[in-house]
Amino acid sequence: MKYSKIEDNILLTIRPKQEERDRVESVALELLAEVDRSEDATGMVVGSIARDTWVSGDRDLDVFMLFDPSVTREDLEKKGLSLAKEITARFGGVPVEKYAEHPYINTNIKGFDIDLVPCYNIRSTANILSAVDRTPFHTRYIKEKVTGLTDDILLAKRFAKSCGVYGSDHMTEGFAGYLCELLVYHYGGFGNFIKAAASEWKPGLVIDIEDHRTKDFDEPLTVVDPVDPGRNVAASLSASKMAEFSEYARGYLEMPSEIFFEVRKKNALTEEEFKEIIAERGTSIHAIVFKTPNAIPDIVVPQLRKSVLGIEEMLERNGFSVSRYSEYMGEDNCILLFELLNENLPGIIKREGPPLWNRVHAEKFFHKHLGNTYAGPYIENARYYVEIERKYKNSKEILNSPEVLQSGLGRHVRKSMNKGYNVFSGEDCYSEEFSVFLHDFFRKYSPFAEIYNDIINK
Amino acid sequence: MKYSKIEDNILLTIRPKQEERDRVESVALELLAEVDRSEDATGMVVGSIARDTWVSGDRDLDVFMLFDPSVTREDLEKKGLSLAKEITARFGGVPVEKYAEHPYINTNIKGFDIDLVPCYNIRSTANILSAVDRTPFHTRYIKEKVTGLTDDILLAKRFAKSCGVYGSDHMTEGFAGYLCELLVYHYGGFGNFIKAAASEWKPGLVIDIEDHRTKDFDEPLTVVDPVDPGRNVAASLSASKMAEFSEYARGYLEMPSEIFFEVRKKNALTEEEFKEIIAERGTSIHAIVFKTPNAIPDIVVPQLRKSVLGIEEMLERNGFSVSRYSEYMGEDNCILLFELLNENLPGIIKREGPPLWNRVHAEKFFHKHLGNTYAGPYIENARYYVEIERKYKNSKEILNSPEVLQSGLGRHVRKSMNKGYNVFSGEDCYSEEFSVFLHDFFRKYSPFAEIYNDIINK
Repeated sequence: MKYSKIEDNILLTIRPKQEERDRVESVALELLAEVDRSEDATGMVVGSIARDTWVSGDRDLDVFMLFDPSVTREDLEKKGLSLAKEITARFGGVPVEKYAEHPYINTNIKGFDIDLVPCYNIRSTANILSAVDRTPFHTRYIKEKVTGLTDDILLAKRFAKSCGVYGSDHMTEGFAGYLCELLVYHYGGFGNFIKAAASEWKPGLVIDIEDHRTKDFDEPLTVVDPVDPGRNVAASLSASKMAEFSEYARGYLEMPSEIFFEVRKKNALTEEEFKEIIAERGTSIHAIVFKTPNAIPDIVVPQLRKSVLGIEEMLERNGFSVSRYSEYMGEDNCILLFELLNENLPGIIKREGPPLWNRVHAEKFFHKHLGNTYAGPYIENARYYVEIERKYKNSKEILNSPEVLQSGLGRHVRKSMNKGYNVFSGEDCYSEEFSVFLHDFFRKYSPFAEIYNDIINK
Repeated sequence: MKYSKIEDNILLTIRPKQEERDRVESVALELLAEVDRSEDATGMVVGSIARDTWVSGDRDLDVFMLFDPSVTREDLEKKGLSLAKEITARFGGVPVEKYAEHPYINTNIKGFDIDLVPCYNIRSTANILSAVDRTPFHTRYIKEKVTGLTDDILLAKRFAKSCGVYGSDHMTEGFAGYLCELLVYHYGGFGNFIKAAASEWKPGLVIDIEDHRTKDFDEPLTVVDPVDPGRNVAASLSASKMAEFSEYARGYLEMPSEIFFEVRKKNALTEEEFKEIIAERGTSIHAIVFKTPNAIPDIVVPQLRKSVLGIEEMLERNGFSVSRYSEYMGEDNCILLFELLNENLPGIIKREGPPLWNRVHAEKFFHKHLGNTYAGPYIENARYYVEIERKYKNSKEILNSPEVLQSGLGRHVRKSMNKGYNVFSGEDCYSEEFSVFLHDFFRKYSPFAEIYNDIINK
């Protein structure tokens, strides 16, 4: 038997039925015909539907419009968009203009979430003109290799999704669909892939299927793109997510269960639970909340990370010990959450001055502080120190001070916060909008730990 | 004029008068005669009295008893001690046996504090048999070089003493008398020495008068011993004390005053002042007090430093933020003093587990903590973490726990503390015995800062 009973059961639910296939295919063919009707471009279905590696229920249909490389970039964008809008109109869809490296059209036609993307029809990835030009090559490569492995790929994608590591966006930092496909192909099936992840993986792993890489990559996992020797397909996979996947695989082998393929509902905290938690932790909890900037998550999320870290550093610099921090981009509002060990700090603060050997600065520091300190200037390890009055003795005080806006914030975050933001403390940090985020922050578990008890209790 | 008015005035008070010289010389000659009367050894006066570099009022007279190198080490000690005791008896002194590298006799005769030290009469420092064999060479070298510089040396020694950095013992970590002599000789006088210290010194400075060093030293200041190319005379000078001296010299040049040569009385805190200080600082202050171990300061002081650091590390490891710490060896009791930013810590503590890639330990950690945490096991940077209940939430509690004796303590300290120790907190940390130490801890100033206000207010 190639698959376990569990895996067979899962495949029955995730493998698309013939009827579903027929529907997708007919919509795809209609769209392709429309592209081909134009004189400028040739249509091509890409993505998991083209590669037969899609999971039942998937509604994402990606249609590329391939233009001749002689077309200028400006014309590609103009003609691409106008063609995409024409097609959308013909099917009665509403075109939404989106932007990756260049503009494309997203729309909903016959129940499918459709992207219509212009790109160049190049001969080789060495001649790439726009970032999406690589995609058709991925589709051709995988189509050639997946024979006999489609079910394995479905299992792998569903397993990664259940683990919470499916997707290469900045919020997830996990496994792209193409990466799952390459890993299953490399290991020769779902079972071997999981076994390797559970027992052999560690950072620095390099997989180079075509043995053609032209450089070294410094990400935790390197999977050299078979169609582009200078690209790491796993570039956006973080070490943590790689570890979480590895742990999930270990857990699955330790106690196999269908739970490892379930896409579970996210838990949320009630206000009551939140109050209990902060009482039992005894820490000092604060939230900075502001309107979500008007930009895509892949732009905003890294800026939230930068901002939460900038404020964390500001707090530490002022003597507050930050136990944990996190950030979340909600539909309407963003939150930066901080947990400090203590609410208050003593009245004095020790300030490091220049080394005695830096005579000009040392003399300046000496005369500036003399007679105006709790202690010092004194000398320790050949440096001047003073103990002076602490500026911020209370964590609420500092988080409501101008120091926050002077921290290292992301550009969009600063822009939004300049228009206004709220600082909440303790029980006031709770809001419905962030109830799932707050659950994940305080009831933080690794993917396997999260389901371990469920399995045990079944 | 070679010296300033201030320096001339100081010299009048510190230069020994003829009468004082005559008395020292007569005592020294009597002692030498007694050594020479024995058939085993030859007498030699060493130290600052022999070198004419002593300050009026000095009462330290060092007489070495030079034995032939053919004498065994055992015999040197036996014969040396018995001869010293004989001489002591002849003058009606009480012999006190002391121990540096080997035993010697300390006694008080005719108002002088006399050391009678056995050593080998070697030809060259290349043939050193015992650590003190080098001393006669130092005396001979300096006697040859000091002509015209004795007053400069007196000023330098008194200046260093006023600064609090005179002495190469472990408590002071400052300038030995021999080091002062060499520095004055090297710079060609007190004035140039002070100017160099004020404006040119920085760590890594190497002074090699005989240009014969056989290796590199990594101490902040290197002054190669003119009689031993493999030894750094400044080895025990700490970077802090070197900086303090440099600052003091800068201060003296900035505002010359006799204060820079005064040996000032140490200030002490009253109990009232102490109470005011700790109230105004708002920190959490604790003292560990125990009987002073029965050993010389050069043994005990480094062990106190090790112990205070060991306990400081234990506190930090348990989440307490130590703002400052210090140690002091009193006549009867020793004190280890800690100032923490906060008295209390929250109920949770974050514990770092193994990296996920260390599979055996990771699985053990996972199963140990699962279901038994505030949060986790969770994954961060590919490592397991848990949040569990903090063992010690209060600083008094941890300092009264067995953790203290399990910290990295010095041997003699541990022995004394095993017999009993007290932990005091807040106002209870005060005691008369430590009133000077507490002053220096809380009213901590660099030497120049300490006298700056005095000068200004004069």
